[in-house]
Amino acid sequence: MARIGFLGLGNMGLPMARNLKKGGYEVVGFDVVPAACKAAVEAGLDIATEPRGVLEGAEAVVTMLPAGEHVRAVYLGDDGLLAGAAQGTLFIDCSTIDVASSREVHAAAAAQGLAMLDAPVSGGVGGADAGTLTFMVGGPDDAFARAKPLFESMGRNIVHAGGGGNGQAAKICNNMILGISMIAVAEAFSLGERLGLDPKVLFQISSKASGSCWAMLNHNPVPGIVETSAANRNYQPGFAAAMMHKDLKLAQTAANHAGAATPLGAEAAALYTLFVNAGNGGLDYSAIIKLIQGAKD
Amino acid sequence: MARIGFLGLGNMGLPMARNLKKGGYEVVGFDVVPAACKAAVEAGLDIATEPRGVLEGAEAVVTMLPAGEHVRAVYLGDDGLLAGAAQGTLFIDCSTIDVASSREVHAAAAAQGLAMLDAPVSGGVGGADAGTLTFMVGGPDDAFARAKPLFESMGRNIVHAGGGGNGQAAKICNNMILGISMIAVAEAFSLGERLGLDPKVLFQISSKASGSCWAMLNHNPVPGIVETSAANRNYQPGFAAAMMHKDLKLAQTAANHAGAATPLGAEAAALYTLFVNAGNGGLDYSAIIKLIQGAKD
Amino acid sequence: MARIGFLGLGNMGLPMARNLKKGGYEVVGFDVVPAACKAAVEAGLDIATEPRGVLEGAEAVVTMLPAGEHVRAVYLGDDGLLAGAAQGTLFIDCSTIDVASSREVHAAAAAQGLAMLDAPVSGGVGGADAGTLTFMVGGPDDAFARAKPLFESMGRNIVHAGGGGNGQAAKICNNMILGISMIAVAEAFSLGERLGLDPKVLFQISSKASGSCWAMLNHNPVPGIVETSAANRNYQPGFAAAMMHKDLKLAQTAANHAGAATPLGAEAAALYTLFVNAGNGGLDYSAIIKLIQGAKD
Amino acid sequence: MARIGFLGLGNMGLPMARNLKKGGYEVVGFDVVPAACKAAVEAGLDIATEPRGVLEGAEAVVTMLPAGEHVRAVYLGDDGLLAGAAQGTLFIDCSTIDVASSREVHAAAAAQGLAMLDAPVSGGVGGADAGTLTFMVGGPDDAFARAKPLFESMGRNIVHAGGGGNGQAAKICNNMILGISMIAVAEAFSLGERLGLDPKVLFQISSKASGSCWAMLNHNPVPGIVETSAANRNYQPGFAAAMMHKDLKLAQTAANHAGAATPLGAEAAALYTLFVNAGNGGLDYSAIIKLIQGAKD
Repeated sequence: MARIGFLGLGNMGLPMARNLKKGGYEVVGFDVVPAACKAAVEAGLDIATEPRGVLEGAEAVVTMLPAGEHVRAVYLGDDGLLAGAAQGTLFIDCSTIDVASSREVHAAAAAQGLAMLDAPVSGGVGGADAGTLTFMVGGPDDAFARAKPLFESMGRNIVHAGGGGNGQAAKICNNMILGISMIAVAEAFSLGERLGLDPKVLFQISSKASGSCWAMLNHNPVPGIVETSAANRNYQPGFAAAMMHKDLKLAQTAANHAGAATPLGAEAAALYTLFVNAGNGGLDYSAIIKLIQGAKD
Repeated sequence: MARIGFLGLGNMGLPMARNLKKGGYEVVGFDVVPAACKAAVEAGLDIATEPRGVLEGAEAVVTMLPAGEHVRAVYLGDDGLLAGAAQGTLFIDCSTIDVASSREVHAAAAAQGLAMLDAPVSGGVGGADAGTLTFMVGGPDDAFARAKPLFESMGRNIVHAGGGGNGQAAKICNNMILGISMIAVAEAFSLGERLGLDPKVLFQISSKASGSCWAMLNHNPVPGIVETSAANRNYQPGFAAAMMHKDLKLAQTAANHAGAATPLGAEAAALYTLFVNAGNGGLDYSAIIKLIQGAKD
Repeated sequence: MARIGFLGLGNMGLPMARNLKKGGYEVVGFDVVPAACKAAVEAGLDIATEPRGVLEGAEAVVTMLPAGEHVRAVYLGDDGLLAGAAQGTLFIDCSTIDVASSREVHAAAAAQGLAMLDAPVSGGVGGADAGTLTFMVGGPDDAFARAKPLFESMGRNIVHAGGGGNGQAAKICNNMILGISMIAVAEAFSLGERLGLDPKVLFQISSKASGSCWAMLNHNPVPGIVETSAANRNYQPGFAAAMMHKDLKLAQTAANHAGAATPLGAEAAALYTLFVNAGNGGLDYSAIIKLIQGAKD
Repeated sequence: MARIGFLGLGNMGLPMARNLKKGGYEVVGFDVVPAACKAAVEAGLDIATEPRGVLEGAEAVVTMLPAGEHVRAVYLGDDGLLAGAAQGTLFIDCSTIDVASSREVHAAAAAQGLAMLDAPVSGGVGGADAGTLTFMVGGPDDAFARAKPLFESMGRNIVHAGGGGNGQAAKICNNMILGISMIAVAEAFSLGERLGLDPKVLFQISSKASGSCWAMLNHNPVPGIVETSAANRNYQPGFAAAMMHKDLKLAQTAANHAGAATPLGAEAAALYTLFVNAGNGGLDYSAIIKLIQGAKD
């Protein structure tokens, strides 16, 4: 039975690690937050005594961390994971981070002859619990082949987006469209309502016409239109506005680095910043319709 | 056999009138452009000698005109259609125009006890030819019921969006989402490409994920991704950028009147203005990717 | 002593009419709001019994109305001012309205051989009271020459911007820059503060550097920087956000008509819409910094 | 006579180093580009044989480099300037870089007890030649006091903006306003022209009114308005669009890090990206009016 190290046992990491264990792997985890380690123990996982403890005897190490700076800190440097790794260890970073940091760690791994994948997920805490996450994966073919069984223990839809960092690239490109779409739907339904158009009628028309999009069909920001919408449960997430904000900022960081023009992506990021700074980061991202409508609460 | 008047026999109007005739109606048309009248005669339609000639003996009159000012000029005033109409005539304005003008004409018709519908279409010249247009209709229920057979001769999908002007409202709300979506897809695929992501791979991922939208699936702006895209035939329309520009400006006009906030809709309109003013109005609206990518031709 | 008619005796109109009277003119006013007429009587003005009463014996008629639709309604049609005017009457519309409506009225006046000027003002209620308004004037040279003494009774800075409607054009172009500038200053000072930069230091630097602008120097949105700022009196106007919103929407209407691209102008209008729709229209326009900063009240 | 090291002898660095020498300092420079070293020798400067050679005997070291990654590479690490520096050496980084990188280097210097300032400039190559640069300086008071005579040899306006990184912060906040202002002026003058307003008349009005700003007064994008404008010499810079683009992207990077909302700053950055990607980076930043007007060349 293969042994897997798992670094980062938060809201997403813990259920992912649990699903690995359910899938028949021996999992040894660690988190800098003692409470997270305690919760992991209660969930039946083994816990290392320090970060690099997850390397011991591990065939693969999965990391699930908040941001690029954490990933760089954990992987790089004299006391980082890469420096302490045995040849043959496979690293899988499931964090959603900036493309540049991801590629910096990929390059450091490659320089040491270590296999590495970036594999950010979508599907949220619900998908992590249910083992139905989507993994967007960047890195070499053979590493992808080795990692596939692990992904299949934690998720359902696993796509290989190309070389190192391409998992991150695919995720932010997709989510940039999603963020823009959500605001577009919020604008159109708000405009429609002010013009005397029943949102249900607009949905009937637009959901079958050229304005149709995933955000409208699945996360419609108007209550009472689509059953799966957070709008029907007072905008409790779901996918928090703060997380969409993070993804849109990552897209802007990448666009700035790459010299790409993203006028609507930039504006969408700015609108989510306005919304989150006004204290709404904990609401579902579809609640951006409140900003568009000028709602006061 | 019912007699139908038809005012405005341009690229859209002529094939629509032809389909009415094919549907068994007697059609008498008119257009201020002599060449349009000549083409209509060649297509076997009867032509009146002046605009109000289409009223004679007509059970219903269809109008298909470029903008609100033309619709107001044709319907209103002492020598307008409404002033010359017999009681019982049904008016159907298929023009895509501003909501305020449409409602002004609706009110004038109602004041005279005349039945009126606004019924802008989508589907383009192709849909007009094939009789597969979508009609988004605003106006009273009984007028809608009377007009339905006519719509069915010219189109396939007929939706009643509510009271007068709501057909226009539904169309611009839908097309505002479409215009924003197209730019979002153009931005995401351009960003992806600069990040080293194969557009085909991004399409594979995003078309099944939360970034999916009608524009991406049907009119993908990157050549070689989707068979139906104008991108594969050098951005020959399809749906011209100039027409998308017109619809986005109508949405802005309506939003300004109604006091609705549409930050992305406003930006999308501005980007199409930049694109059209640079001489690209005749290209398909998906060619906006050239502006986003900084292409020189 | 010349007699002047004055239509529209609201917050701006009344003090302007009063200054005309102070300047030695005989003023006969009217307003559709009875309370406004009463206030005018208390201020010593003569009041007509109906709108067209202001025409009687008047050498010139000044109008000060809220929007284009009011101006069109008052001037045009069978019972409008133009239809009732004696040859030689000079019309001066001081309302801030859309360029198209202004030009429609100009054309109607010209068709009757009547002299007309559009002359929107800046300077607010304070300037109207003090007789220090700025007039931006469009219309024929001889009409401008005739009107000049009247303007000088009500204002200080009188500029002739060209033909009919150019007064409106000049005002909205200027105010579009002002609205954008104000948001730019709000963004820069908010960003600076988050980066640890004392707003007073940023002001010291930027007010003498290339970022300097009228909004920063005179209406700085950060309290404690510039004495004249509404920021120092809890954002009591001054120039209300609702008025800036109106001007930015007029600029968008004109840009849409004229086919001009104004990406930042459009975005500024959208941001003021968000702000005004959230209930802040009565605050000074510099209070937009609250939206930018995510302030909750 | 104090000895000064100077790293980075490009278009800006070389004339700055020359002015230090003119000011009575002994200057030893270095550049990774051999041609730059050769030009420096021809200008009478001493050249070290490797980057850290500039440390030898130097009381202060000035660096003038393109981007944050270069500054980090040159200062940090085992073979960086800081590691090789004698106690008491003063470091002055005149590069315009991201605030985060600047603060990272400041922290590393402080950790070694070394004095450090960030001091980005404005004034361009012309100001560097003439010794009339503006320095916006961040860092400790005593370091600022020590550096002041050096700044005075190279510039005219020297402002202390606060702690480490605040020089960068002040520069990008100022230049973000400038970039937005320039686009605002371009939009307003283009809109005015389409409305039939003579740009000279608009300038007469607006330059004395509330829309007035530095960009309008000094770098007006319309030819024939302001003598100092690059518009009058075919948009030869001046301040290149590519440099404005860089500064606007730095502002966005800082805003993303700091969680500040800059909707117009983001849009201005996107518009300059469109313009630069279309091949116009070498034109003056005022040439952005070509994008706004839809000019084809």
